[in-house]
Amino acid sequence: MKEIYLDHAATTKLDERVLEKMTPYFLNDYGNANSQHGFGRAAQQAVDEARDTIAGLIGAKASEIYFTSGGTESDNWALRGVASALKDKGNHLIISKIEHAAMLSTAKELEKEGFEFSYIGVDSEGFIDLDELEKAIRPTTILVSCMLANNEIGTIEPIKEVAEIAHRHGVLCFTDAVQAMGALDVNVTDLGVDMMSFSAHKFNGPKGVGALYIKTGVKIGRLISGGHQERTRRGGTTNVPGVVGFAEALKLAKAELKENYDYVANLRNRFVNRVKTEIPFVKFNGPEDFSRRLPNNADFSFEYIEGESILFSLDLAGIAVSSGSACSSGSLDPSHVLLAIGVPEEIAHGSIRFTFGKENTMEEVDYTVDTLKEIVTRLRAMSPLFDLKGDIKDV
Amino acid sequence: MKEIYLDHAATTKLDERVLEKMTPYFLNDYGNANSQHGFGRAAQQAVDEARDTIAGLIGAKASEIYFTSGGTESDNWALRGVASALKDKGNHLIISKIEHAAMLSTAKELEKEGFEFSYIGVDSEGFIDLDELEKAIRPTTILVSCMLANNEIGTIEPIKEVAEIAHRHGVLCFTDAVQAMGALDVNVTDLGVDMMSFSAHKFNGPKGVGALYIKTGVKIGRLISGGHQERTRRGGTTNVPGVVGFAEALKLAKAELKENYDYVANLRNRFVNRVKTEIPFVKFNGPEDFSRRLPNNADFSFEYIEGESILFSLDLAGIAVSSGSACSSGSLDPSHVLLAIGVPEEIAHGSIRFTFGKENTMEEVDYTVDTLKEIVTRLRAMSPLFDLKGDIKDV
Repeated sequence: MKEIYLDHAATTKLDERVLEKMTPYFLNDYGNANSQHGFGRAAQQAVDEARDTIAGLIGAKASEIYFTSGGTESDNWALRGVASALKDKGNHLIISKIEHAAMLSTAKELEKEGFEFSYIGVDSEGFIDLDELEKAIRPTTILVSCMLANNEIGTIEPIKEVAEIAHRHGVLCFTDAVQAMGALDVNVTDLGVDMMSFSAHKFNGPKGVGALYIKTGVKIGRLISGGHQERTRRGGTTNVPGVVGFAEALKLAKAELKENYDYVANLRNRFVNRVKTEIPFVKFNGPEDFSRRLPNNADFSFEYIEGESILFSLDLAGIAVSSGSACSSGSLDPSHVLLAIGVPEEIAHGSIRFTFGKENTMEEVDYTVDTLKEIVTRLRAMSPLFDLKGDIKDV
Repeated sequence: MKEIYLDHAATTKLDERVLEKMTPYFLNDYGNANSQHGFGRAAQQAVDEARDTIAGLIGAKASEIYFTSGGTESDNWALRGVASALKDKGNHLIISKIEHAAMLSTAKELEKEGFEFSYIGVDSEGFIDLDELEKAIRPTTILVSCMLANNEIGTIEPIKEVAEIAHRHGVLCFTDAVQAMGALDVNVTDLGVDMMSFSAHKFNGPKGVGALYIKTGVKIGRLISGGHQERTRRGGTTNVPGVVGFAEALKLAKAELKENYDYVANLRNRFVNRVKTEIPFVKFNGPEDFSRRLPNNADFSFEYIEGESILFSLDLAGIAVSSGSACSSGSLDPSHVLLAIGVPEEIAHGSIRFTFGKENTMEEVDYTVDTLKEIVTRLRAMSPLFDLKGDIKDV
């Protein structure tokens, strides 16, 4: 049984209008975009149009959009590409403590290779500490990186300020916009960043395709080398149906942004209000000011119980949620994001992320809250920690 | 106008049966395979089944199949992954001179980082020189690599012997099977290789998805790191529809291998015979023994004229061919493969690759030969080189 999907931050359904745009490139104009014949030109034209569309929608030039296999590849490329291109300038990079695993694990690998990283802290709502960031910049710093919106708690970071600080010191600024794109009106010129990653499947586009925006003039090494694709910066046969779907999904997301924003925010707001008032001992994680938070995101820690137990109970009731970012599931460690905003480890373990989408309804929201109340009550009734809560509170 | 597609080595049409298998994972079971709920499990189950299917079809274990974004990523990963994992053992790698650009350009990058490469020559039909290979092995050699079948001239390399030589010296063996997979019955156990790359779009599967086979126990670093996907060896949200389509395409290719092999070989054979007998001053590139050549491949050098001119003229007549591998188009250099088999540079410039597919017909073959004859005659009539051919021959 699976009925109510509240895990839109993990991935989304492909929009049928997007699939319709992709299908001709599967079955008719199936050429290799690098080929010098009619089939190839049809493919290349579709890729050019997709690149133009995406560039226009984010305030970039078409020549600044590089297609990749997704957000993780783009993140890896940005970090490794800058590290290899600028290693003669310095070996120090700065990233926030709440970056995605794609950034953090690449940072760990680069540390083994001799690069140094500073990890900048965030406040209790997940906003990066701009003072700490500026103080961390050294003469050897080659990159400042902070995600545009956090995938777990929805915090929208002050990237414009981050970029200004980086540039004041002559340092490049990268932002991982994977979670923000489609939900917010992202514009690279307004943000002032030098590089930005994003991925189609987060806004009803296909899985397996993403992009890295690289501002004209930015030096960056290659992650995947091969033929002359992507102006020789990223090898591999272009995923033509994928990039066509990517562009169409972003076009639709932008055209319907206001409508979708209001719709999912309305669902989310009711959900948050009901949970806060109807379920005791919960901690709402992330910004209280909803204008500084992704519209579809709600993240709660339910004290005295395990997030996994809630997740499995909701799943049995046909409700799909996440107990952290999907990318770090399979790990039993508490969320690094919740720890970074100061949630105690034992409470972080009881956390659930609910992310709404345009396919959800208010009835689904109400059914979810009703079900959640029953589950939390039942689990707490079985929890020795909950029995002892008076003692714990006294400690 | 585009009617006759004879560029199946560049890419292929998605089989409609494959798209049918993929569609539910776009629109219904669209979950993130890493998610711990019904949508996630449906996606994970599809990925597991795809992995099992592919492993079974190539003689591997499911745990030895790692999904990637395609052949180029797999090639990059194999080379860089071995280089980083075994750099304490040595810094020397051996590859053939006729590898794909994905291998050759990665080798060039690794050379800048301090690794050394030996490039092994091939004979006049493109077969690797096994004596030269064995002599090139040093105590510091960490990898031997040779493609399974060449993408330009169709030569099927003696990979079993290559792997035996590598293993006799305690060295790992990798093969790029991108062009061979689907056309030949590829089995990693029979070949004895430690790693192998392949890509779905070469055998009527989707673009943007491939795999790297990594034999149990082989140490290899990561190219793309992130979450716990692919047993933590390759980060990034799994392209569920892509891997489902990949597995279905390979299943169909294997089930219909004999039938397709005979069908396309029959088309190719008639094409080769007619061109050889009806067009003068042509050089047939690659093995004359068709059992040692990909069934769909024909490659000809037309003396005294430019391949690009033939390609454009054929394109105007609605016939899609390649003047080299699609991946190196955009470059005006003559094919490195043709130079490696000893074709003089001025003749290599006049080369065209014709690669047939199951959608082609004998009528298309005959129309192509008839058209080609007219084009070659017309271009030679305009060529000052052809006028002087008596003088040139005398030199």
